[in-house]
Amino acid sequence: MKKDHISNAVIRRLPRYFRYLNDLHEAGVIRISSSALGKSLGSTASQIRQDLSCFGEFGQQGYGYNVETLRSEIADILGINKEHTAIVLGVGNLGRALIENFHFERSGFTLTAAFDTSPAIVGTSVRNVPVYHADSLEQFLAEHHTDVAVLTVPQRVTQQTAHRLVSAGVQGIWNFTNIELSISNPAVIVEDVHFADSLLALSYMISDRDAAAN
Amino acid sequence: MKKDHISNAVIRRLPRYFRYLNDLHEAGVIRISSSALGKSLGSTASQIRQDLSCFGEFGQQGYGYNVETLRSEIADILGINKEHTAIVLGVGNLGRALIENFHFERSGFTLTAAFDTSPAIVGTSVRNVPVYHADSLEQFLAEHHTDVAVLTVPQRVTQQTAHRLVSAGVQGIWNFTNIELSISNPAVIVEDVHFADSLLALSYMISDRDAAAN
Repeated sequence: MKKDHISNAVIRRLPRYFRYLNDLHEAGVIRISSSALGKSLGSTASQIRQDLSCFGEFGQQGYGYNVETLRSEIADILGINKEHTAIVLGVGNLGRALIENFHFERSGFTLTAAFDTSPAIVGTSVRNVPVYHADSLEQFLAEHHTDVAVLTVPQRVTQQTAHRLVSAGVQGIWNFTNIELSISNPAVIVEDVHFADSLLALSYMISDRDAAAN
Repeated sequence: MKKDHISNAVIRRLPRYFRYLNDLHEAGVIRISSSALGKSLGSTASQIRQDLSCFGEFGQQGYGYNVETLRSEIADILGINKEHTAIVLGVGNLGRALIENFHFERSGFTLTAAFDTSPAIVGTSVRNVPVYHADSLEQFLAEHHTDVAVLTVPQRVTQQTAHRLVSAGVQGIWNFTNIELSISNPAVIVEDVHFADSLLALSYMISDRDAAAN
């Protein structure tokens, strides 16, 4: 029985639970107590129970969690088995790094194409992903259902690229451009990756540690 | 008057506050009510007041916040004015993308050097950052105080590189390798960037939206 509204904080914690359960599963762990799971995740047993209770009943009093079952339930919740498709817009250094090194398939996504304007790269393929000219974006989207566009274009074309994607029916954008997209269609979901937020958190932690040491 | 222990959740929200206040400042906004600030940040006035109260008194009842003052106070809290230094380990696609496009200086960091092993790139510089051979890492670190190492090396050398950094006294690691680092020195702070967590949150949100639509 799933609750109607799941808080953003819970949604942000689930991928971490999933990642950790994957590691446990690969290490051959069959069962884990909720307190051990909580501790490993820098959380508490009751926080984890509460998070998971948003989606139904998991685990068993006095038994803990079966790692493989919980892993698979969280995979279902996260939509990893939905066969999502994604394209990459902009095959510069970052776009190429993602195509070559990021395991989209482990998150349940198939990369179907990439787009760029550079003659040096259009017509090639990167790790078996074909690179098409950006001019053919609309035609491609008309012919291929696409759940998510990964936005790694230069900032000056970010907003217009987002506009083209949304006009062509794409409803999920993974945005690496550090530009806040302005999108009128409320169905479109934008997930921003802000490297600076992460570096600033690190900056805070090292400053705080250094101040405590002095 | 700063509290002794600041929760991780607060530390994660501060960079976002800072980013938004920067935008407001650039847009010429002088003053903002705490409720408007909360709303823009998908939060509430009382949440923001509570977060900031960890660090002292900000804003004024009935007046709201002075944008520039609050921005500058949060910059101080985050350590942006500490003149932190950073080096990049691994100048592949991702390392190069960060050096070329990420504004380290906006987060208060100066990039002093990059390290790689490829003869094609060692001895060159990328956006004025000199690229040295990885063999000279220890010598460089002995001569240059370095707060943070940005880890964008291949996974197979991740752990050994982290070990070398820590042995040479680096106490902050910004880790893009998707490998959980095992580090014995508790003073070392590791900030992991997990792209998959972000993509899985997006996967959840589009799956949830699509389920609601059906």
